[in-house]
Amino acid sequence: MADKPTPADKFTFGLWTVGYNGTDPFGGPTRPPLDTVHAVERLAELGAYGLTFHDDDLFAFGSTEDARRTEIDRLKAALAATGLKVPMITTNLFSAPVFKDGGFTSNDRQVRRYALRKVLRNLDLAAELGAETFVMWGGREGAEYDAAKDVRSALSRYKEAVDLLSEYVLDKKYGIRFAIEPKPNEPRGDILLPTVGHALAFINSLEHPELVGLNPEVGHEQMAGLNFQAGIAQALYHGKLFHIDLNGQRSIKYDQDLVFGHGDLHNAFALVDLLENGGVLGERAYDGPRHFDYKPSRTEDETGVWDSAAANMRIYLLLKERAAAFRADPEVQAALEAAKVAELASPTLNAGESYDDLLADRSAWEDFQPDAYFGAKGFGFVRLQQLATEHLLGAR
Amino acid sequence: MADKPTPADKFTFGLWTVGYNGTDPFGGPTRPPLDTVHAVERLAELGAYGLTFHDDDLFAFGSTEDARRTEIDRLKAALAATGLKVPMITTNLFSAPVFKDGGFTSNDRQVRRYALRKVLRNLDLAAELGAETFVMWGGREGAEYDAAKDVRSALSRYKEAVDLLSEYVLDKKYGIRFAIEPKPNEPRGDILLPTVGHALAFINSLEHPELVGLNPEVGHEQMAGLNFQAGIAQALYHGKLFHIDLNGQRSIKYDQDLVFGHGDLHNAFALVDLLENGGVLGERAYDGPRHFDYKPSRTEDETGVWDSAAANMRIYLLLKERAAAFRADPEVQAALEAAKVAELASPTLNAGESYDDLLADRSAWEDFQPDAYFGAKGFGFVRLQQLATEHLLGAR
Amino acid sequence: MADKPTPADKFTFGLWTVGYNGTDPFGGPTRPPLDTVHAVERLAELGAYGLTFHDDDLFAFGSTEDARRTEIDRLKAALAATGLKVPMITTNLFSAPVFKDGGFTSNDRQVRRYALRKVLRNLDLAAELGAETFVMWGGREGAEYDAAKDVRSALSRYKEAVDLLSEYVLDKKYGIRFAIEPKPNEPRGDILLPTVGHALAFINSLEHPELVGLNPEVGHEQMAGLNFQAGIAQALYHGKLFHIDLNGQRSIKYDQDLVFGHGDLHNAFALVDLLENGGVLGERAYDGPRHFDYKPSRTEDETGVWDSAAANMRIYLLLKERAAAFRADPEVQAALEAAKVAELASPTLNAGESYDDLLADRSAWEDFQPDAYFGAKGFGFVRLQQLATEHLLGAR
Amino acid sequence: MADKPTPADKFTFGLWTVGYNGTDPFGGPTRPPLDTVHAVERLAELGAYGLTFHDDDLFAFGSTEDARRTEIDRLKAALAATGLKVPMITTNLFSAPVFKDGGFTSNDRQVRRYALRKVLRNLDLAAELGAETFVMWGGREGAEYDAAKDVRSALSRYKEAVDLLSEYVLDKKYGIRFAIEPKPNEPRGDILLPTVGHALAFINSLEHPELVGLNPEVGHEQMAGLNFQAGIAQALYHGKLFHIDLNGQRSIKYDQDLVFGHGDLHNAFALVDLLENGGVLGERAYDGPRHFDYKPSRTEDETGVWDSAAANMRIYLLLKERAAAFRADPEVQAALEAAKVAELASPTLNAGESYDDLLADRSAWEDFQPDAYFGAKGFGFVRLQQLATEHLLGAR
Repeated sequence: MADKPTPADKFTFGLWTVGYNGTDPFGGPTRPPLDTVHAVERLAELGAYGLTFHDDDLFAFGSTEDARRTEIDRLKAALAATGLKVPMITTNLFSAPVFKDGGFTSNDRQVRRYALRKVLRNLDLAAELGAETFVMWGGREGAEYDAAKDVRSALSRYKEAVDLLSEYVLDKKYGIRFAIEPKPNEPRGDILLPTVGHALAFINSLEHPELVGLNPEVGHEQMAGLNFQAGIAQALYHGKLFHIDLNGQRSIKYDQDLVFGHGDLHNAFALVDLLENGGVLGERAYDGPRHFDYKPSRTEDETGVWDSAAANMRIYLLLKERAAAFRADPEVQAALEAAKVAELASPTLNAGESYDDLLADRSAWEDFQPDAYFGAKGFGFVRLQQLATEHLLGAR
Repeated sequence: MADKPTPADKFTFGLWTVGYNGTDPFGGPTRPPLDTVHAVERLAELGAYGLTFHDDDLFAFGSTEDARRTEIDRLKAALAATGLKVPMITTNLFSAPVFKDGGFTSNDRQVRRYALRKVLRNLDLAAELGAETFVMWGGREGAEYDAAKDVRSALSRYKEAVDLLSEYVLDKKYGIRFAIEPKPNEPRGDILLPTVGHALAFINSLEHPELVGLNPEVGHEQMAGLNFQAGIAQALYHGKLFHIDLNGQRSIKYDQDLVFGHGDLHNAFALVDLLENGGVLGERAYDGPRHFDYKPSRTEDETGVWDSAAANMRIYLLLKERAAAFRADPEVQAALEAAKVAELASPTLNAGESYDDLLADRSAWEDFQPDAYFGAKGFGFVRLQQLATEHLLGAR
Repeated sequence: MADKPTPADKFTFGLWTVGYNGTDPFGGPTRPPLDTVHAVERLAELGAYGLTFHDDDLFAFGSTEDARRTEIDRLKAALAATGLKVPMITTNLFSAPVFKDGGFTSNDRQVRRYALRKVLRNLDLAAELGAETFVMWGGREGAEYDAAKDVRSALSRYKEAVDLLSEYVLDKKYGIRFAIEPKPNEPRGDILLPTVGHALAFINSLEHPELVGLNPEVGHEQMAGLNFQAGIAQALYHGKLFHIDLNGQRSIKYDQDLVFGHGDLHNAFALVDLLENGGVLGERAYDGPRHFDYKPSRTEDETGVWDSAAANMRIYLLLKERAAAFRADPEVQAALEAAKVAELASPTLNAGESYDDLLADRSAWEDFQPDAYFGAKGFGFVRLQQLATEHLLGAR
Repeated sequence: MADKPTPADKFTFGLWTVGYNGTDPFGGPTRPPLDTVHAVERLAELGAYGLTFHDDDLFAFGSTEDARRTEIDRLKAALAATGLKVPMITTNLFSAPVFKDGGFTSNDRQVRRYALRKVLRNLDLAAELGAETFVMWGGREGAEYDAAKDVRSALSRYKEAVDLLSEYVLDKKYGIRFAIEPKPNEPRGDILLPTVGHALAFINSLEHPELVGLNPEVGHEQMAGLNFQAGIAQALYHGKLFHIDLNGQRSIKYDQDLVFGHGDLHNAFALVDLLENGGVLGERAYDGPRHFDYKPSRTEDETGVWDSAAANMRIYLLLKERAAAFRADPEVQAALEAAKVAELASPTLNAGESYDDLLADRSAWEDFQPDAYFGAKGFGFVRLQQLATEHLLGAR
């Protein structure tokens, strides 16, 4: 049975997650606002490691400097009292009407300048609170109609913004890295940098690519029908998994933000196996916060909020336990061997082999028998999947 | 630990499932044909209850009468030797070029007549083999282009076909019921009767609706992003679950036909709980065959074929075990009570209450406090889902 | 060039459509509330035929009887002044916290009784305003988690509600018919009666099925990847197209509610062709209101609201014009003939032909040459689609 | 009215497109093989510029060297006779059973070596025929089950392969560039490099990124619900649009490969506007072949094949005409101006402005009035979309 969560597990929660009031496109709030200090205290009791937030989560958009400072100080006191950390901060460039066409890429240049100021101000706060990661989810950077947004210009403005912010962070020696969070759609019809891949590609066009990575979210990739575990693996391949958002999504539809593991359970299992065990490569792949970006269902009252927060952590720990047992099982190891999964880690060429050498190797072409793969040389992938499923079900 | 499958579990397999040769839109076969007798023997060894088939699975399209009879007799001998049953038969109206625009609803009237003949002939075979269910999957009944198919006429022709076949079965006293299998698309761009709902509605337009029900398939509903368990529950509500196709699908994409439980595991769990336990209503909901309509992955050789066949049954039995434990758990029962799940079975009106009585009941409107639901009266659905997940994971 | 819209075109708009304030899951309003009288006046100026509304659109949830009456009277005066009709009314059972688990199918029986009272009250208003159609969109009737909702019980409660309301309407001689509006998901993870098909099937379980039909919405079907035109055709086949919601959706994602024709343009063209021309059958298929249930984009101010309202009507009239030209084109008629589209309207059996006759017809089986369809007897569907596309593009 | 296509339009077709025999997952061929020379002649007559092919399209997998040469020589003679070019070649690493787990990333190292040999051989042929682009669609590079494929290792092997091939091309001075074709799934459950974004990101990890770009396909991006035009714009932003595959797809489902424009017509219009006019930036964005990668529907005979080939080109030319008229319309120009679409091309910062300057600009924050965007400052995007739609419909 999985242990209770402790700060060593590095579980973190967005203030906007447990603080979600139940509003959705067809209904107003079903829950009153959650006080920040209360949230910090409850999360600490549940074993969380940290809290994250958008500026507007902590102090209302348009707050006076005094009101803003009051909320920051209340938070800092609560953090000191509980030991909770703030490893990540992000900026809300999507809720206020001014951002109706985006922040960094609004067609309106005045809005873009205002957005930059809002983020710069929030970077100072991130530094003040010791956050190491600054997430950028450009939820309004996009369009509903193709003629309304020149995508190439939009990417140029996105780059301009990230370059400026990078320069600022470097000059100020803030020790902060940026993490872009992709999403395919909602609230815009099409969002810029819609997937892990698009964001990874974009980073390569920046002035300081080393400072910018990803914050992929389970549900966002699955809203495009993509395999989240595979996307995370590609982010790791590029050295760009700076942060991660865990939650649950059931098929391609609106952004559900369910509890982690309450969506695609197979993919959640594979993800935890990758993060914790490194899959077949056998090395822990990610050490950062396990950040839950979910929404307690609208049907719940506050009890349901904390039940759901606890559920996220418990599922993660259960899957971690299942994944460890999976890797330790000799039958699994034999099946992996039979499926040649580790053989893929071996280079295709021999050490020092050139294409001329390969062309001279008759066993690779002239003497190779491709027909031998018909009706034979099965990979046993179904058996492997069955073993994974049985471990997931706790049935081995 | 779940028991080994036995014929009492009523697991059945399509001959075309274990016989799938690995062909897909981008590649030819990776496995040789599987002999029918061999398939029957292997399935019997694995604990299956029965075999199902399309006419063209058993004898090639266009076979002479002799060739057809030879294959039928070989099958009958194998059935007799193993005890395997043939509870269901179906007709292939989709593979041959003649059916390129469908069978019952081809724009070409000659094709429609030919299709009827092919099905009538196969009904005789179904009766000969003692099949109780005759599945109709109209995979080519549809269109890619809206102007190419008059849908109302197509439904009229579909009805004409089913009415004729019903009359035939009744006159012949065959003891056969029909089960329509919905699918939203593939191989046609849009298929007629695309979901469980559309097929249920269509049945009500038939001359003998009592003779016609459904054969829903997990993956087909999930290809439309629909909840399979909910669809099955509606089919049961209408008394129309005549047969069921179990398999696995991962999100909205091409028809994957994975092993049952290798797709959406939560929905598979809920489905087995519904079929075996009746959900909260507490009564087994379906007694017919548990039919696997899946495809052993193209990557597998024959070993993988039988491993995958066994995997289907094992997953079902494991989920049945998990679902039983879920229903037996007092904490689950308390959570269901708190979530008022059984309260939905109580009529909204009191016994004998009229709308006038309801209008006179001040507690229902004038004195009712809707605001009491804000910030309170949570349903605890997340906790219930977490309990279900923990049972699914074998963690309670 | 298409004419300007007039009331004879029967274009209607929901008060909640032009009145949408831009709120979405990630941002608050970008537009102030729209006054009802102003909306009526502007719609009348634009050539609309009517206005529709939910009770809570006209008077806030929880209004006193006086406040409610004030708003009703203001509306009636505006209708009288402009000639606008109210052909449809509907009830909001989804926005207030009390409905967080639904109205007719909330697990909480007290809520279900309250919901019935709210609808009964609104039926009286519908009768007062002369509405002929009463729409029921059960947006909160559903679940996120399979164990949380017993679907069979939910359908029984749904039936109980609709049966009671039907009885009320019949007894009161209100001349009102009900129209159920299906939707697959959002705001619930899975909504009951998710598609046109499921709702059609459900109607057959009611006490007064003749009183209940459908109000299908373009985007709702397309959120399940279904062909809207085909769904409408099936609703017509069953005689159940009581009302229709026109808008635009781009692929499977959140509910976009774009302007009609700003989504899948091919399907919009085919739909208008079906409604206006009856497709190949050649008879106008639907005479009721052409109701736009869309949302002016969040990026727009009031000018954009009215531009978008006008855009819906203009697109419809343009497509109507295109569809008429398509049907009148001799080349199209020849292509339809070649594709045997009308041949599908001919019964498969000859008049009076029995299955014995069919079995005796050697041309249908023994002498039929299925191989003749290989490499020949193409249907020319692509050419037909190309002709449709060229007409849609106004290029013929 | 659009002109007839000429070679100057640079329309090209895959030999496998017009040569598609109608086979799909549920049926065998409906058309006989198409002779290469005949295909070349017919495409030339229709006004095409070029032909493309996989090795196995021209000569069967496993051909003897003589048989291979015979087919190459026949093709060369036909090209010489007609003037058709071969601007692109690609290798089939997906149809034969040996590639059942992929080519470059098969778990089986011997297969990977064989795949490299097959591609090297085909590169020589590409050079011989003067092809400038070598497409790589890794249709089998992927998995159905997460445990079966170590994605990081797979990407390393993919890189190893592309690096070797790049070195070969450079050494041989072949003047060939590589173009990776992304696809999310089908035939594998999840394919590596599933979108334009993932492939762009991957290229940056290569030894010779300058040699490798993209060959995006309309339907492949739309199978993930992504906006194809936006993806192409990002590819252009990165300078990586080396080739393009045009076709049609209707929503998220199996790979339909419809005629270009027979799918999402709005997106097709925006794409042509981008390629031909550069959108608002006003400069032709892509000069390479307009390559159609589509499938003539299974329902068609050879007449339908050529009708569909012609339809692709005609739609493109019609959309080009519509897009030109859209850009030339003064009302569109005014609407673009009002929507500030071109303003996005202006840098957010003034020339030489630093973040200190921005922080000192009170108009950007202290004096900025975000509330002015509530109820005002609408962007007029709906009006712009309506103008685009009316131009698309040929109604202006």
